[in-house]
Amino acid sequence: MDLGDNWAVVFYGVNDLRLEQRSIPKPSDDEVLVKMHSVGICGSDVHQINNGCIGFYVVRPPMILGHEGSGTVVEVGKNVTHLKHGDRVVLDILPRCQKCTYCQAGRYNLCTHPTLGLKTQREGCMARYYAHPANFCYKLPTEMSLEEAAVVEPLAIGLYACRRGNVRPGSVVLIIGAGSVGLLTLATSKACGATKVIITDVSQWRLDKAKELGADFTLKVEPNDQEDGIVRRITSLLDDRPTVSFDCAGFQSTARVAVKATASGGTVVLVGISGRIDMELPVRDILTREVDVRGCYACVNDFKTAMEMVATGKANVKTLVTHHYQMSDITKAFDELRTGRAIKVLIHPN
Amino acid sequence: MDLGDNWAVVFYGVNDLRLEQRSIPKPSDDEVLVKMHSVGICGSDVHQINNGCIGFYVVRPPMILGHEGSGTVVEVGKNVTHLKHGDRVVLDILPRCQKCTYCQAGRYNLCTHPTLGLKTQREGCMARYYAHPANFCYKLPTEMSLEEAAVVEPLAIGLYACRRGNVRPGSVVLIIGAGSVGLLTLATSKACGATKVIITDVSQWRLDKAKELGADFTLKVEPNDQEDGIVRRITSLLDDRPTVSFDCAGFQSTARVAVKATASGGTVVLVGISGRIDMELPVRDILTREVDVRGCYACVNDFKTAMEMVATGKANVKTLVTHHYQMSDITKAFDELRTGRAIKVLIHPN
Amino acid sequence: MDLGDNWAVVFYGVNDLRLEQRSIPKPSDDEVLVKMHSVGICGSDVHQINNGCIGFYVVRPPMILGHEGSGTVVEVGKNVTHLKHGDRVVLDILPRCQKCTYCQAGRYNLCTHPTLGLKTQREGCMARYYAHPANFCYKLPTEMSLEEAAVVEPLAIGLYACRRGNVRPGSVVLIIGAGSVGLLTLATSKACGATKVIITDVSQWRLDKAKELGADFTLKVEPNDQEDGIVRRITSLLDDRPTVSFDCAGFQSTARVAVKATASGGTVVLVGISGRIDMELPVRDILTREVDVRGCYACVNDFKTAMEMVATGKANVKTLVTHHYQMSDITKAFDELRTGRAIKVLIHPN
Amino acid sequence: MDLGDNWAVVFYGVNDLRLEQRSIPKPSDDEVLVKMHSVGICGSDVHQINNGCIGFYVVRPPMILGHEGSGTVVEVGKNVTHLKHGDRVVLDILPRCQKCTYCQAGRYNLCTHPTLGLKTQREGCMARYYAHPANFCYKLPTEMSLEEAAVVEPLAIGLYACRRGNVRPGSVVLIIGAGSVGLLTLATSKACGATKVIITDVSQWRLDKAKELGADFTLKVEPNDQEDGIVRRITSLLDDRPTVSFDCAGFQSTARVAVKATASGGTVVLVGISGRIDMELPVRDILTREVDVRGCYACVNDFKTAMEMVATGKANVKTLVTHHYQMSDITKAFDELRTGRAIKVLIHPN
Repeated sequence: MDLGDNWAVVFYGVNDLRLEQRSIPKPSDDEVLVKMHSVGICGSDVHQINNGCIGFYVVRPPMILGHEGSGTVVEVGKNVTHLKHGDRVVLDILPRCQKCTYCQAGRYNLCTHPTLGLKTQREGCMARYYAHPANFCYKLPTEMSLEEAAVVEPLAIGLYACRRGNVRPGSVVLIIGAGSVGLLTLATSKACGATKVIITDVSQWRLDKAKELGADFTLKVEPNDQEDGIVRRITSLLDDRPTVSFDCAGFQSTARVAVKATASGGTVVLVGISGRIDMELPVRDILTREVDVRGCYACVNDFKTAMEMVATGKANVKTLVTHHYQMSDITKAFDELRTGRAIKVLIHPN
Repeated sequence: MDLGDNWAVVFYGVNDLRLEQRSIPKPSDDEVLVKMHSVGICGSDVHQINNGCIGFYVVRPPMILGHEGSGTVVEVGKNVTHLKHGDRVVLDILPRCQKCTYCQAGRYNLCTHPTLGLKTQREGCMARYYAHPANFCYKLPTEMSLEEAAVVEPLAIGLYACRRGNVRPGSVVLIIGAGSVGLLTLATSKACGATKVIITDVSQWRLDKAKELGADFTLKVEPNDQEDGIVRRITSLLDDRPTVSFDCAGFQSTARVAVKATASGGTVVLVGISGRIDMELPVRDILTREVDVRGCYACVNDFKTAMEMVATGKANVKTLVTHHYQMSDITKAFDELRTGRAIKVLIHPN
Repeated sequence: MDLGDNWAVVFYGVNDLRLEQRSIPKPSDDEVLVKMHSVGICGSDVHQINNGCIGFYVVRPPMILGHEGSGTVVEVGKNVTHLKHGDRVVLDILPRCQKCTYCQAGRYNLCTHPTLGLKTQREGCMARYYAHPANFCYKLPTEMSLEEAAVVEPLAIGLYACRRGNVRPGSVVLIIGAGSVGLLTLATSKACGATKVIITDVSQWRLDKAKELGADFTLKVEPNDQEDGIVRRITSLLDDRPTVSFDCAGFQSTARVAVKATASGGTVVLVGISGRIDMELPVRDILTREVDVRGCYACVNDFKTAMEMVATGKANVKTLVTHHYQMSDITKAFDELRTGRAIKVLIHPN
Repeated sequence: MDLGDNWAVVFYGVNDLRLEQRSIPKPSDDEVLVKMHSVGICGSDVHQINNGCIGFYVVRPPMILGHEGSGTVVEVGKNVTHLKHGDRVVLDILPRCQKCTYCQAGRYNLCTHPTLGLKTQREGCMARYYAHPANFCYKLPTEMSLEEAAVVEPLAIGLYACRRGNVRPGSVVLIIGAGSVGLLTLATSKACGATKVIITDVSQWRLDKAKELGADFTLKVEPNDQEDGIVRRITSLLDDRPTVSFDCAGFQSTARVAVKATASGGTVVLVGISGRIDMELPVRDILTREVDVRGCYACVNDFKTAMEMVATGKANVKTLVTHHYQMSDITKAFDELRTGRAIKVLIHPN
């Protein structure tokens, strides 16, 4: 079978992305080779292009970009039984060793040796072809498109955030930041039955998107608004304090608003990966009002549910895909994201 | 019945405590009058004397001090059936309204109207006589002394801290600060089956107490030690990272060490009430390693278990009572606590 | 104020209900007097009429019937501040003592002395006037009718059942029995984000109601169907096993189907109060497949959320109210319920 | 390396065990070959010899017996890095596929395809040599003997039972059956901080062992005692109801006592694998008193903690090993177990 070339978007350093020809990978016995259809750009990709790292992970270039991908199986390793040539799949690319105590206990997102077992983070899927363990490729139901499939991973992150925050009927939810993760956390909060959801952002355009997705309240803020004023406007609109707050923006100011606004005994989930190592947080609220602060790294065991939400129309992810680009226009794609008028941008390698 | 006078220790402001004659309170129909035997001094009392506030609560003087007390029932309200004259009791003084959603849901330590229903915080029990709702007076078993009873409340706080941190067999525990709350959290961690417990402090004398109480490891630190160095020494002694860490000291530096040392997916419980409103915390650890940060305010539904632990010898609280004073020596008692060579100081009003 | 008479529906024994004149109760300082508008008939009422008991509780006649009620405040005790004459309210009638360890810990539905503190079960609200502690009367928002309010209590039971079963996105739910509790558990399961819900019943008419309320699948069964056959049809329709199953019918055969059908590691919630003391259950499934079996008695802390669901249209309870009667037609109302073609029947005392 | 022969105890059917010569297995790249030192006999082995099945699992003979084993590594697959020749190890033999949703979610004891990935249940370790995936062989600390190591698996089951029952300070625990699993559940309950533990059995000799292990109360029962009488004696000795009850005996009568005795809102954990498919259980207690019934199959992620408990002396498992046999005396070993005067019987293959 002549598969042709394997162009890929390769990260070479801060603000240095290059289109390169790579050899087509040969799937091992437990892997499949996937012809990529759509690869989403994530906030963490933007963070990596700007800073050269993702949280603790210092990225060693050159590295192929991309971890939100869908495509079609074109070659199947000999041990693989549940997938065949032509199957459309979404990829779960989070690295895990499957051996450490975290992996054994079902928290593989905290795997201590994420470079073993699965692919390392050096090899993303923003390429024409990508080889991946078959066990972490999920076959799409007929009614789901490959574009929608590329949004399954960020939707799964929203679901995981809601699990970390235990959103359910009765929850009053605050979401700070109406980018793609914030909007997907909004969608999953509503799906979990949250009683009221308020979302804040600096962009009215994104807040309008939030309204479409079911936000009960939106609040436009300015970068220099005082935190106590924002807290007052949030609780005034809600006529209540939020019981669960998600910081999907990742600034010190937004984390502080989340903690201060949250009801006693409530939970703040930090979702947006931040460039900051340290933040000045209102510990007196954390301690005396028992406002728990929890991190939320990637997602874990949430793909299946995310796929069902898309397949059954419970999450209308199509409305979030605002832009499509070829790999050759990767720089334009990142520029678009920086304008603040894009939500989810997909790259189509083939 | 001639009960005589009712001398009390009254807080009048920062570093201003006075011994005053008060009228003996008349118990209402649902209350009992208690002749006080022992009243412990808590870290939050010290905090109040030094700063005039406890967490968010600004104390309005004049106010009788004391919330860790035991004594003997000398008068019984007409609706009270489970207590009689002569019963020895420990008092649960935490104010609660019994009506708000927190009280109804069993989290009365977060009560939104703590001044309703029960006594306000204006009236502590460091006095000869104290009237209290009978439902929150627990009768002592024969084998428990009134001195031990005065340590039930801080022991209950240790139990609650362990519940917040979910300490159990397999837990590796770090406790920062070997004052009375730290030492009681050590005792309760061991009682919960923690696999290994390390405790740190600046005082070797207090660490020796910790050894007596079953600490597996102790670490003496100096005020100016670098946090990364402390973290390394902790993980090196444990040959592991702690899965649950308690900050019983309440400084920014100690909270930071707790977060940095804790294993991914673990929990940091902030126990020590701090004078600080804000702290610079290592959020990157919180977010990408999912180290949860939880507050721990007072205790809730833990008295009964704390009493059983004392009665059955599972918590040897006697060893923690290092000093005894009359009310007239209250200033000496506070001075003693400030030397760092006292753990639990009891005042005996009668 | 001349309030007039106080006719009431009084239970005198099995199949012996009588309309009686009672004196209008005088509200105590903490109570309000409510002029009743709507009182729903519950499955447990039917059970009581047929058997003279509810679960463990042997009812001592004569006793006024009714525990799902709404009405208007006409008199206010002197300590009551949050309600005034004319306020429309829904009543939370579950008795609780507010003193035992269950009440203190927020599980007042398991109160050990349910006859203290609140009204005993001897006095229901199916009367013209009813006095009730103000703290357990919830004021209706403007947009909620008194008819809807009478369905808040059974909706709260559905919410509690879902909490006991931890229904959330990803849950595959089986509900056995499409009576009012089954249908409300369906509504709350959907509100909690359940991925797929199947409901079974012997009546096609009730299953059609279930379809209206959003059931993904319905299954009509016959009284003599074999349990393994029913299990196969359930898993075949779902293309999966349920992860959470609710037995809202209360027969041995339905409890057995629930356990056998449920996925390993899943949960069966027994909701329907049964006349049976013992049942032969498939323990091998419970033990080796870790199918948890949990009871669900009344509800606890769920009223506020239930009211919000009705107020915001998330639960369309109006469609469940199929019949309205005067108190004088109480026998007809029970006959209607026994036909199986009524869902929720409301009695209007005034 | 000449390893010599490989005699093994092979199950051929009900009451048909044979000593057979087998070829020495060749470890795969990820496996190690272990020279077996001690193999415990489990209640489920006895069950299998008597009935030919374990729970749902029908055993297909011929099959080598044994799943509680320890030994010394004598050969190492080429991918194995954490073990070397001469290391002493304990084996975790529970089969799991590592691919299904249960394995991914950390509940591998409920694995849907337990014959994939790891060894099938056809090949136990009661043989001179046994090949096993290195990742599921745990290296012993210096201070732990190979005899103690053979009791790690049943101790881990006790730990898991306590996790299922959420035993902690404040728990009042009932254990029915003082066989090896009951006694180890006693040891782990005490380690978890249970306030009071009562254990019942028909054998005074086993109850004396329980006293040695720290039981607060023991109760000798006769096979024909009435269940309500047993419940009364339990609650009378405890002066309380148990909040967590473990049925380690596996009879209908014991499961019924467990449910009836347990406090409202408490938990019954079914631990002892029973020959019975169905049992008549007191559902009215389950439903109206919210006594949860949970199964407990094998254990999951508990080996590490069990090893630490043995290594640190928190569980004195040596006292439970009452008998030692060669493989040639396997029939005697089973006979000894049937007398009721053996707790843990070890077979020493070499």
